[in-house]
Amino acid sequence: MTNFSWKVEYKSKKNNARIGTLTTPHGKISTPAFIFCATKGALKASTTDVAKENNTQIILSNTYHLMLQPGGDIIANHGGLHRFLNWNGPMLTDSGGFQIFSLGHGSVADEIKGRTNTKRNKTLLSISEEGSLFKSYLDGSIKLLSPEKSIEVQRDIGADLILVFDECTPFHVDKTYTDSSMKRSHRWATRSLNRFNASIKYKPTYGSAGQQKLYGIVQGGIYEDLREESIDFNLNKIDTFGIAIGGSLGSSKEEMYKVVDFTAPKLGTQHPIHLLGIGDPKDIWSLVKNGIDTFDCVSPTRLARHGSALVRGKLGKKNINNNEFSQDLSPIDLNCGCSTCKNYSLSYLHHLLRAGELLGLQLITAHNIFFMNELMQIIRDSIKNDSLEEAESDWFI
Amino acid sequence: MTNFSWKVEYKSKKNNARIGTLTTPHGKISTPAFIFCATKGALKASTTDVAKENNTQIILSNTYHLMLQPGGDIIANHGGLHRFLNWNGPMLTDSGGFQIFSLGHGSVADEIKGRTNTKRNKTLLSISEEGSLFKSYLDGSIKLLSPEKSIEVQRDIGADLILVFDECTPFHVDKTYTDSSMKRSHRWATRSLNRFNASIKYKPTYGSAGQQKLYGIVQGGIYEDLREESIDFNLNKIDTFGIAIGGSLGSSKEEMYKVVDFTAPKLGTQHPIHLLGIGDPKDIWSLVKNGIDTFDCVSPTRLARHGSALVRGKLGKKNINNNEFSQDLSPIDLNCGCSTCKNYSLSYLHHLLRAGELLGLQLITAHNIFFMNELMQIIRDSIKNDSLEEAESDWFI
Repeated sequence: MTNFSWKVEYKSKKNNARIGTLTTPHGKISTPAFIFCATKGALKASTTDVAKENNTQIILSNTYHLMLQPGGDIIANHGGLHRFLNWNGPMLTDSGGFQIFSLGHGSVADEIKGRTNTKRNKTLLSISEEGSLFKSYLDGSIKLLSPEKSIEVQRDIGADLILVFDECTPFHVDKTYTDSSMKRSHRWATRSLNRFNASIKYKPTYGSAGQQKLYGIVQGGIYEDLREESIDFNLNKIDTFGIAIGGSLGSSKEEMYKVVDFTAPKLGTQHPIHLLGIGDPKDIWSLVKNGIDTFDCVSPTRLARHGSALVRGKLGKKNINNNEFSQDLSPIDLNCGCSTCKNYSLSYLHHLLRAGELLGLQLITAHNIFFMNELMQIIRDSIKNDSLEEAESDWFI
Repeated sequence: MTNFSWKVEYKSKKNNARIGTLTTPHGKISTPAFIFCATKGALKASTTDVAKENNTQIILSNTYHLMLQPGGDIIANHGGLHRFLNWNGPMLTDSGGFQIFSLGHGSVADEIKGRTNTKRNKTLLSISEEGSLFKSYLDGSIKLLSPEKSIEVQRDIGADLILVFDECTPFHVDKTYTDSSMKRSHRWATRSLNRFNASIKYKPTYGSAGQQKLYGIVQGGIYEDLREESIDFNLNKIDTFGIAIGGSLGSSKEEMYKVVDFTAPKLGTQHPIHLLGIGDPKDIWSLVKNGIDTFDCVSPTRLARHGSALVRGKLGKKNINNNEFSQDLSPIDLNCGCSTCKNYSLSYLHHLLRAGELLGLQLITAHNIFFMNELMQIIRDSIKNDSLEEAESDWFI
């Protein structure tokens, strides 16, 4: 028995944008949707209740972090991550590959901003056909993460949607490396799928959880022929429920847009399409037009913890640390319906940040969560009305 | 028109314990009650909504901190502290005196534990008839806090219950100093009351707020004849709504118990009696027998932020940082009805603390708030049933 389904409900007449319904055993997700990062099993300064009250549909956690602390066994003993972190809605885990390589090589932000990661401690030790060897960021111990191991841990964790294990190449590698890495990631994807199909280890102890669906990942860096090859692999050579767009998205936003524009439309409507690690509202407005169904990024909650509240318009955010807000009796956004904007002034939030009160981070986080979910709601509505371009212009006025 | 009242509903047949109802424009408080500290206008890692869901009746803020940051004017511009921090229930502010002297001389905990405060930066510059001169802990600027100034700031802040300005003497001063300090605090109390009665400055902009009642403070250190004199002053020489027991409570728990046992019963039933700065459940069980109606202390929320959850029994708390909890699937307390115990395991809370997640502090804070409110509920119930001693024994099994 399965409780999963994916259906494109409406396709835009003007571009490749679509609205859809992704059904999981823990509920339905209306797409395009944003996935919030509970990296280590927590939304940092937000309870899952607050996330839900602010319209969150789905969250994700990171296999890499959770396998190191507390370990998949402890989560399995709880009956899975849903119970562990008290979230009864849809959930995704990545495969751990991204973290090994981003912590090993440098982050996607470093990539897009053209920074090379010279200072950071390299934790990636080696990559072989078997998998990748890395140093735990917690205790320095040496660990191997392989496709099989990643799937086993993700089975223990028990998220609804899980990912194949892959190498996320840095942007500065050449085409030859990207090609051979892609082919290895394809072999890893097949091994991931085989272990996924073979595994009966995860025994659900509650509700309908424990049923999971796998996402493949399109590789190929910025090279169109390689992306083409990986699209073919994901559509025709393995059978996964969803498909994510991964690998290097280039060294600039323009390259990223180009890669997604080239890749996403070719993936069709049979699979929900996830774009890994992108969360800037400007990018989301643009990339839904290529047919992206789900996005994830740490930025909405991370910005909040640095005192920045997301707002519409060209600037996109208010840095509440700024002294200009010390006497401002209005909320972050007068038209916002979040619990923070209904109950608190900018002056109070500014005071909390100045006084070093944790509550400030909680309240701004709640706003940013609501904001992202409202953004996605407006995007869905405007796709349905074929008014996406107009809605986008309104948003940035 | 006033919306304040105080009524002792029931007096124990066995001791001086009583249950009462303290009515304010923002709601009724069933006493004995615990007052949670929103020192700088925030309950640190808890929203006021979470505090309310966990049965909180009343919170307090500190005039000293709020006058320095953000300043009484900004709070007044919001229509008062209730609006500023989004708490529609009863609220108290202290006069600022305690902070000037505790930050200047050393804390009550230092006192009770017999520590002298040699290392801490002295911020108290001088005390005169006019008031006290201190250095702002924020920017080093020199400020004068006088009885008049304290009342003006408390009028701006607009809490329901406010305190006269006093000197909180350290335990190590002698009887002569305690005596002259007490007499000056009495003169300050009269000046506080005069300014309170004369002030029409605070203009309520919402609901019934802006109406306030004043508490006097019993001084006299550990000296019974001085306490006697201060009791007489507070009962017969000034007319305040409530009375707090302040000043030095000695250098040990035994001395503190002795002072309260001597003082509180003599204050009768005409005023609600507040004991400043005491929040250990053991102390509360003991001191309600002397007729204390309300307590306040930072400890329940502070302990939570250090990873300690309050529990019944002799130990009184669980340090969730301890590795013994890493695989513990049970909640902090199986019988606890708080949102944290209903939804989260010790193993998860331990994981959050190890991972440095702010959420851990939020969840343990919610538990500790619920715990204190449940403690007070049980105390009220057992006073009503004349079974306080038995309930106390059960609590510590």
